[in-house]
Amino acid sequence: MSQSRPVTVVVDAIGGDFAPDQILQGVTQALAANPDVRIILTGPADIVQPFASTAWGRVEAVATTQVIEMGDHPANAVRSKKDSSIVVGARLVREGRADAFFSAGSTGACMAAATLVMGRIKGVSRPAIATVLPTAGVPCILLDVGANADCKPENLLQFAEMGEAYASVVLGVGAPRVALLNIGEEPTKGSILAQEAYALLAEKLPAFTGNIEGREVLAGEADVIVTDGFTGNVALKLLEGTSKALLGQVKDAMMATAVTKLAASVLKPSLVRLKAQLDPDTYGGAPLLGVDGVCIIGHGSSGPVAVANAIKVAVQAVEGDLTGRIARAVAEN
Amino acid sequence: MSQSRPVTVVVDAIGGDFAPDQILQGVTQALAANPDVRIILTGPADIVQPFASTAWGRVEAVATTQVIEMGDHPANAVRSKKDSSIVVGARLVREGRADAFFSAGSTGACMAAATLVMGRIKGVSRPAIATVLPTAGVPCILLDVGANADCKPENLLQFAEMGEAYASVVLGVGAPRVALLNIGEEPTKGSILAQEAYALLAEKLPAFTGNIEGREVLAGEADVIVTDGFTGNVALKLLEGTSKALLGQVKDAMMATAVTKLAASVLKPSLVRLKAQLDPDTYGGAPLLGVDGVCIIGHGSSGPVAVANAIKVAVQAVEGDLTGRIARAVAEN
Repeated sequence: MSQSRPVTVVVDAIGGDFAPDQILQGVTQALAANPDVRIILTGPADIVQPFASTAWGRVEAVATTQVIEMGDHPANAVRSKKDSSIVVGARLVREGRADAFFSAGSTGACMAAATLVMGRIKGVSRPAIATVLPTAGVPCILLDVGANADCKPENLLQFAEMGEAYASVVLGVGAPRVALLNIGEEPTKGSILAQEAYALLAEKLPAFTGNIEGREVLAGEADVIVTDGFTGNVALKLLEGTSKALLGQVKDAMMATAVTKLAASVLKPSLVRLKAQLDPDTYGGAPLLGVDGVCIIGHGSSGPVAVANAIKVAVQAVEGDLTGRIARAVAEN
Repeated sequence: MSQSRPVTVVVDAIGGDFAPDQILQGVTQALAANPDVRIILTGPADIVQPFASTAWGRVEAVATTQVIEMGDHPANAVRSKKDSSIVVGARLVREGRADAFFSAGSTGACMAAATLVMGRIKGVSRPAIATVLPTAGVPCILLDVGANADCKPENLLQFAEMGEAYASVVLGVGAPRVALLNIGEEPTKGSILAQEAYALLAEKLPAFTGNIEGREVLAGEADVIVTDGFTGNVALKLLEGTSKALLGQVKDAMMATAVTKLAASVLKPSLVRLKAQLDPDTYGGAPLLGVDGVCIIGHGSSGPVAVANAIKVAVQAVEGDLTGRIARAVAEN
């Protein structure tokens, strides 16, 4: 892939709870932050065209007439709504008119569109959604967090290879340490899937460091943690729920009396930083790894910062040839 | 089961990281808190006999000569070390000399001893380990948290019935709400296991309220949450790890400067309360449900408070006829 031309990212203007306003604000931030990025906006003409016309030629509008709703059945919607912002976005990457696609719309529809329209990288049997977790040190990648509820050991091996490529290209980790999420340290621990995946990873993946338990997920001991999409999704949401519940309780403790409120005001800057660190917006979106093109799926609640960060991540993935790296890694095993 | 006689709990004097001292301190606390409880201590003669001789006839010493180590293979150790504190403890319940067994030793060995020596309740195919999670409101029970890494839908139905009985008998919940841990709200979401378990629970269990996602586990929306032992174990340990990481970061923020330290000192009492609420010691131990007798397994790091609380929970389970309730619930389906 040539590095000489600017990177073009398709952005779904109408995906997400705060679309289109906050999505467009995020695009504006991304354009300001990176003079080499170009954007193609997909969505209704009355939204995308006025915005493009004011963006100094760096934003192209591609008007679409259909909308995939959050309640739509993902695969059916992708097949029946071919002129939706999501399907057209994936097609622009497929046709080489753009390098990457970002949407904060229906996760299921984005996955289906990317898989059906862009296609899978040769040799990848199941694309996976990765997410970046805030750890004590360098952030860590967890995958799959929901694309595949039932997995085979070979899927987990590919998730490991794809996660390794992502950690290297986007997080800049030199030699990523890859661990298997399990319920004990020894190779013989865990479900049949976990035991078989352990054996396969130990055989095929030089970067494999062994099992990691739930207690150590945030301890910064691994750069990539692989698991099936059921466990990964439960883990991700539990982490979000626990953070929210705990910070809420800390806040309650601080707001209890006039004296504690005063004390809390002193601590506020530090706690705001902590909250930002735990905020999914900081990492912008979750890459769908294994499809033939860069696809970043945003949280439904993505605000401008999340959108700008997702675009930044997409550009890094394109410039680091994430897709090519995954293709080579998968071809080796 | 007659309520007229005092409840006798066997306590493994040498199980746990802080055994025997903190285990014996916990026994002393339990004896002081409940004049009707009697204890049988299993362990080496030089530990259990001196303690029993000073306990006003409420503690009986049963000297054992073998020790199951943390590294031993659980089932093999239970078969070969028949005179260990764990195996003898389970046997005392089996023989009707005690009503309940508590150990903070090897979880695997306790499970194996309880299952092999006490036996399973008629109709129960897989005993499960339950744990009490601190939620915003009433505590909530999560099971299985590690006894069965691979499960069938029928296992999850029995876990639900056993968890319902435990919530009712020990937590005093009038009409427990039982939910299935899953990665979406709809019945068609999740792994094949989760989908089939949903259908079975919806058909057989009147208390079933549907799926619950990781984000809502601590929100107090369910009294009993069922899942397979792999997902449950990952979830439990992740929750512990997240709490620890977050409270550590809050603490770091508070210790940053002299001014924040001063502010933190004002907040300390509230935060100590919060930490106690999240402390596994508060709930004392995890019941192994489905074996024919009450068996409570303590955290390896159990201190005196955990031991005393575990004994209290064991007494409640005996007095509320937990075993009989589980037997009746399982017989109905």
